[in-house]
Amino acid sequence: MSIIVLGTVATDTLKTPFGLRRNILGGSAVHFSMSARLFAPVNIVAAIGNDFPSGYIRFLKKKKIVLDGVTVQRGESFHWEGEYQGDMNTAITRKTVLGVLADFKPVINPAQRNIKYVFLANIDPRTQGDFLNELRAPRLVAMDTMNFWINTERQALLRMLKRVDIFVANDQEVRGLTGENNLVRAAERLSRLGPKMVLVKKGEHGVLFYSPEFTLALPAYPAKKVVDPTGAGDTFAGGFMGYLAKTGRQDALTVKRALAYGTIAASFNIEDFGLARTASLRMADLNARMKEFRKLVCF
Amino acid sequence: MSIIVLGTVATDTLKTPFGLRRNILGGSAVHFSMSARLFAPVNIVAAIGNDFPSGYIRFLKKKKIVLDGVTVQRGESFHWEGEYQGDMNTAITRKTVLGVLADFKPVINPAQRNIKYVFLANIDPRTQGDFLNELRAPRLVAMDTMNFWINTERQALLRMLKRVDIFVANDQEVRGLTGENNLVRAAERLSRLGPKMVLVKKGEHGVLFYSPEFTLALPAYPAKKVVDPTGAGDTFAGGFMGYLAKTGRQDALTVKRALAYGTIAASFNIEDFGLARTASLRMADLNARMKEFRKLVCF
Repeated sequence: MSIIVLGTVATDTLKTPFGLRRNILGGSAVHFSMSARLFAPVNIVAAIGNDFPSGYIRFLKKKKIVLDGVTVQRGESFHWEGEYQGDMNTAITRKTVLGVLADFKPVINPAQRNIKYVFLANIDPRTQGDFLNELRAPRLVAMDTMNFWINTERQALLRMLKRVDIFVANDQEVRGLTGENNLVRAAERLSRLGPKMVLVKKGEHGVLFYSPEFTLALPAYPAKKVVDPTGAGDTFAGGFMGYLAKTGRQDALTVKRALAYGTIAASFNIEDFGLARTASLRMADLNARMKEFRKLVCF
Repeated sequence: MSIIVLGTVATDTLKTPFGLRRNILGGSAVHFSMSARLFAPVNIVAAIGNDFPSGYIRFLKKKKIVLDGVTVQRGESFHWEGEYQGDMNTAITRKTVLGVLADFKPVINPAQRNIKYVFLANIDPRTQGDFLNELRAPRLVAMDTMNFWINTERQALLRMLKRVDIFVANDQEVRGLTGENNLVRAAERLSRLGPKMVLVKKGEHGVLFYSPEFTLALPAYPAKKVVDPTGAGDTFAGGFMGYLAKTGRQDALTVKRALAYGTIAASFNIEDFGLARTASLRMADLNARMKEFRKLVCF
């Protein structure tokens, strides 16, 4: 089953205790695609400026990512500059160039309108809504967001919650959105606002999944080396959605395995800057680490 | 196999968003014993003042906790007043009455000197050392500590690390003690200072276990209701040590199950103030929730 992801295709300048990288390929849709591609064909919907490095486009094509939904607009491409310090759990934004994202209207082709598995990466909730209007009969829609939209587009965000199956957010966002400190209760409350399933990403502390039918929890893979956490959440989502799209099921065991695949995909992402590790990731790498992860988690 | 625990038998005054409780029974050794008693006979070694409520002593005796090592000294009993707010992950200390703990010399009887399973709860590392000198041939010694000793008794603490098998600490303490932000590497570094095994407690985020042979990770049990987290770490340790003492093994699967029992025991502790829930805890309660926990974690 194909997957379609709405998000950003961007360049990132990143500083971590392990070094500095300027203008490397990044963006939510790109990180998502690096893990999702191992499970299913991935279609990216995004806008780039006419300054976007053509080498990055060639790279994505080589990775068999479908770029029919990537529109080139006159102007600057989305660019993010961030830094991580200390425990590296929180990014410090140094600069954001919105560029062509400022008035981005998603455009997809007729075939893409029939895609069933949809990931709305972190982007203006109004753009997420516009995009969702273009799809004919999605089977499973997941959406991510960030504090910025919770604070500035709360109403649009709440409207979107009614239209999606899975809401993906980190622990701070879930607490900020509900005003509830207990994460299980916060997730439960969010699920009553629309999305049946709520996936709480806790970074180095793993993930919590809530649905009225079952609650699941997994620790993160205990990584010894965290070089650059940028895109870990999207890489997680790519593994998670990828496995759900591949299996076509949503029972507790399937969802748990999807969470584990997401966890493992993210554990590779953080080992090096940008896509340096995930660009060469193969299914065999995921499965080998999944086996190890099962050994350290299951009792 | 019997267990001996050195720690505090205290009264606590606790304020949480769920209410206020004055002078309820608490202390590290007491919380430890509430879960450990389900697996093995528990001996407490502690000092109380002559003001200690006799009803609390009767309660512990009724729970079959061996109190031969509890010495009554002239003076005030150890008393702690704390408050939890917001996400309740951190206690705010309002008042500490050290009382008879100020010059506490552990005293045990000849039979207790032969006990093999030892837990040194959070207390002055010099007292932990004095106590360990009294034991003949312990098989497994675990020690807990807190930031206060890391800052004020660092050398004594480092000497103790060479004498124990398992070091138990929370994530902040592990980072503070090593200056290393990555928890896996921090635990690895600590294990080189003496204790083969390092157990990192992360509160609502679960637990990480490191030994040169294997690394393990478990999420916390997703609790909907956290009324009072006081003693959760000690209740965890009691379940953990209890299972190890009962089985007599230390292989990866046994340690993983011990971590899971500790997790489940702690999940009951936080559901109500003080010992309100754990006082009536039975093995059947632990096992029922273990089954549920396995379903939500193992894939």
